[in-house]
Order: sequence, then C-alpha cells, then structure tokens
Amino acid sequence: MAEPNPAEQIRQDFAPPQVAVEDAARAMEAFARGHYSEGRRVVLITSGGTKVPLESRTVRFLDNFSSGRRGAASAEYFLQAGYAVIFLHRHRSMYPYSRRYAATNWLDVLRLHLPSAPGDDAPRVEAEQSQLPGIVQILQDYKSMKESGRLLPIEFSTLSDYLHLLLAAAQALSPLGSSAMFYLAAAVSDFYIPASEIPEHKIQSSSGPLQITMKMVPKMLSPLVKDWAPKAFVVSFKLETDTEILIDKARKALSTYRHHVVVANILDTRRAFVVVVTDTEESKLSVSDEEDRSGLEIEDKIVKDLTSRHTQFITRT
Amino acid sequence: MAEPNPAEQIRQDFAPPQVAVEDAARAMEAFARGHYSEGRRVVLITSGGTKVPLESRTVRFLDNFSSGRRGAASAEYFLQAGYAVIFLHRHRSMYPYSRRYAATNWLDVLRLHLPSAPGDDAPRVEAEQSQLPGIVQILQDYKSMKESGRLLPIEFSTLSDYLHLLLAAAQALSPLGSSAMFYLAAAVSDFYIPASEIPEHKIQSSSGPLQITMKMVPKMLSPLVKDWAPKAFVVSFKLETDTEILIDKARKALSTYRHHVVVANILDTRRAFVVVVTDTEESKLSVSDEEDRSGLEIEDKIVKDLTSRHTQFITRT
Repeated sequence: MAEPNPAEQIRQDFAPPQVAVEDAARAMEAFARGHYSEGRRVVLITSGGTKVPLESRTVRFLDNFSSGRRGAASAEYFLQAGYAVIFLHRHRSMYPYSRRYAATNWLDVLRLHLPSAPGDDAPRVEAEQSQLPGIVQILQDYKSMKESGRLLPIEFSTLSDYLHLLLAAAQALSPLGSSAMFYLAAAVSDFYIPASEIPEHKIQSSSGPLQITMKMVPKMLSPLVKDWAPKAFVVSFKLETDTEILIDKARKALSTYRHHVVVANILDTRRAFVVVVTDTEESKLSVSDEEDRSGLEIEDKIVKDLTSRHTQFITRT
Repeated sequence: MAEPNPAEQIRQDFAPPQVAVEDAARAMEAFARGHYSEGRRVVLITSGGTKVPLESRTVRFLDNFSSGRRGAASAEYFLQAGYAVIFLHRHRSMYPYSRRYAATNWLDVLRLHLPSAPGDDAPRVEAEQSQLPGIVQILQDYKSMKESGRLLPIEFSTLSDYLHLLLAAAQALSPLGSSAMFYLAAAVSDFYIPASEIPEHKIQSSSGPLQITMKMVPKMLSPLVKDWAPKAFVVSFKLETDTEILIDKARKALSTYRHHVVVANILDTRRAFVVVVTDTEESKLSVSDEEDRSGLEIEDKIVKDLTSRHTQFITRT
C-alpha cells in the first residue's frame, strides 16, 4: 500500500479546522515575501499545546501541557536579532512581552484617579508601576516591535488547526530558501481521533467506563524537510521527563527526519538547561542561578546559538 | 460488596492534589463562620473545567471545555445580592470583574506618558479608556468588592484538586445549615484514571496507537446532599449538546441525588437560555436580543431566581 500523501491526509483525516486557514495563509505569504525582499530572515515559531477534540461539538478534549512561555520568550529574542517572526501560537497561550505579566490581575494594578473638583478632567486610570516590574521598558519594546511590523501572530486551538496552518506556513516560507527558519517549539499531540470516528454529541457518562483509541499523528517533520520547505533551516524540540532516553531520542529524530537541530530538554529543568543536538555535536546551554537572578533567560542563549548556526547554514548552502 | 465511602475514595483512588488543600480548608472554614455570624448567606460557586492527568509527571491530560464565564459572572451577581462568595475556580479561568477584559492584551491599551522635561515627574503608565468599555465603573465595583471581604477565591487545576477542595468546602459550609448554597457550575470530568494506573513518564508515541481506559468519577452530589452538608441548598448544572435528552437528564439527576435545583442548558444557546428545573416545576429563563444589547446577562436572571428560591428554602426549613 502506498504511503498516503501527508498534505492530503491532513485535509481528509482530520476534523475541519476551526480557524480561517486561507486568510492566515495569505497573510503569512505576504509577510514572508515582504520581509525577504528587504533582506530579512524569517522564522516561524510554533508555540503552545494542541487540543484534540473527543467530540465534534466539543466538550471534552485531550490536551498537552504547554504555557507557551518558551515560544513567546524566543519570539522576543528573534526580534532582537533582526528576524521577522511568524508566531503560530495556541489561543490564549503566552505572548511576547505581555507574557511577563501573565499572572497579573490587571484590575489589581490599576488605580482610579477621580477628578478632584467639578470642571476637572475626566477620571484617569493609571497603572501602579511598582507592581509591574520593568513595565516602562517593556511597553517601549512592545510598541517599537509593533511599529516595526516584524511580528505576525497567528492563532490555533486544535491539532487540526495547527496542522493546516503549519502546511500553509511551510508553503509561505519555501520561496525564501535557506533564509527561512522553522523553530518548532509547540507541544503537538502525538495522537488523534480520525474525523470519521468522532461522535457528534457529548459522550454520555451513563454508558460506563470510557474507552478511547487514538491513532498516531503522522510526523509532519518528514514532509516539511523533504517536500514543503526543503531548503529551510529546521529546528525541532524534544521534551521528555526521563533523562535516560532524551539524547537517544533526539539523535533518532535527526536521523529519521534529516533536519538540522533538536533542542532537547527535560520537563523539570527546561528553564535552566537544554542540549542543542546536531548530526555532529551536542552543545549544552545552561543558565546559572546568578544569571537567572540577573534576569537572563535560557531562550536568549538558545536563540543566539541558533541564529549563529543559521548564518553558517546560509553560508554553506 | 459495600459501597466505598466517597471521601475515602477521593483520598485513596485519586492522584494527590497539587494544591494546598488544608490551607484552603482553614480559609474557607474561617470565611464561612465569619460571614454567617454576621448574618450573611454564603454561596460556594464552582467554576471552570477540570484536568485529568494521563501521566503523573504531567505532559498530557484530558480536559473539559469551560472558560469559567458563567461562574465568574454569577459571582458578581451573588455579591450584588449580599452573599459572601467562595469562588472555587480553575486556575486561569475567568474571574469576577476582570472577565470583561479577558480578551484584552493590556500592553495594547497602556500608554506611556514620558516626562516632557528633565526634572518632571517619572513616566506615567495610563490606560486608554476608550478601549476598555466601562472600566471606571468596573474598577470601582472591583475595589469595593475587595474591601468588603466577601469574595474568597480558591484555585484548582486537576480533578483531584477539585474533589479534595469540594469535600473541604462542604465541611466548611455544613455548620451554616440552610444558609449555605452550593452553586456547582464547574465542568467536572466524568472520567478519571485511578492513581495506581497512571504511568510516571510521558507516554511514548513509538509504542503505537494510544488506548486509554477511564473509570467513571463517583458522583459527589450524592454524599454532598446526604452526608457532607445535608441542610444546604444545592444547585447543579447540566450542559448537553443534544436538546432531546436535556430535561430528562435534569429530572433524572434530581431524583437520583435529591438536591434542589438543576439549571439545564444547551452548549450553543447557554448564554441566552436556561431551564431551571426543580422537583415540581420547570421555569425558563431567557435573555432577548434587546436585553443582550443593553448588557443584561442571563446569570443576572439565574441568580435572582435562585436567591429567591433560597429564601423560600430557608423559610420552609
């Protein structure tokens, strides 16, 4: 039996996407073309976890843990490095810059300044800066990033959304050749339920214990590297909880998919330590306690490492 | 075989909670006692969906759809009605008052006012009121609610957290007799994986298709009504996608659990229409398009209906 074409399989076997894929495709295509023509490199960052609905009118779904912190932080450092960034992220996951206040209830930090006498100005609503560390700098960075037009945010929720948008992104970036980077940090489900097997209505608990059988999601890294964007620089992430198998799994991914870098990390230590694995080497990146206290983030080091590898990659090809 | 004691089952069969249950129990107990002694009624609102981990070092989990909008909105109306409110909600689900700006990226609505000359004041960070409808009123309501001390927020993430906290809440409210109301709006999973069967590490996709078998969660409504808080006024919610079975299921729940009210609703129309089902009647509550445009929310009607039923309940008992 012939292997199914993965692009065809996305369209046929997965539930219809819940986002406007064609609009997003056009936006990504124009964004990539524009920045490339101005001599900029473009990185696609994927970020956050995917939802896999268990019902077509969805009440229940299978989810992957991911706040999207890594992707959102990395986007900032890629922007600093001069890249144009397509930020393909899970709806409501962390966002560049605003991620620093993700735990803030804004009503707690806003103060109402009522006019002191009739005829005064209207009431002012002012933010308490002592409760928003770094807010002046962050606001300046955020506004200047917006004005630069170098960030294109695109949202997904379900696995199907993600797969359709990844395919569209690859088609948008393919013309850029080696100037495009894929930085695949999203936590994508390995399993799904084929569209034809999803019940329409809420699963009834009165029917007894729940049996769920899920198929493996086709690995999109393979067609991405081989067919969709064969000249691009491709970085994937491997998150495990078991240290023993981590590097082996990273090596195996590289030899299976023939892409360029795996950033390998362990769930518990992922903010302080990663291993950048390529065909020929393993380099360890870490953030010391002292660096951490000074506000240095490991994504800063990861992005510096990868942009320099990307430069070498462009030079060699 | 004897039925297992549900409180025992929570402690033995579910993964350990990831929140500080004893601290929360003490806080709820003191809160309930204090407000009751001042003659106030106390409502426990549960809100948001529950996570069911598929791995003990959790990467994957089963989730229920719920933004927590209904619970957060209801909390505001119960506060308006003079109740003290324990708001037992899913981490990062919607929150009273701030829910109105849940889709706002605050960095987009903050303006930096830099000092115009050296020696001026420090920069001010001001919110653009035109982008935050009603913000002055909301801020005033929020601050006065905080000062009143009538809202106690408690967070959960997993199903196990929720069950442990619900049991603790019932014990805290039981001494209040009929002055306590349970308003169980959370979308609680019907299924779980017993602690003894959860794998420690991330499930490996290389092992082939995923088979998940989940047990049914014991219905806590039964022991809540019978044993944990037998004099309280108990309201549950029923959300379905299939109109055909909705009222039947609500009636069946009432006769099984012997509580007082089921608020029945359909996923697609839940913001405009509910049926309040009791042993003796069904009353329909709805919000017209015109009411909707004027800002009226169905939770306002639901809470008015239920507080008046609660008054009758207290009088009769």
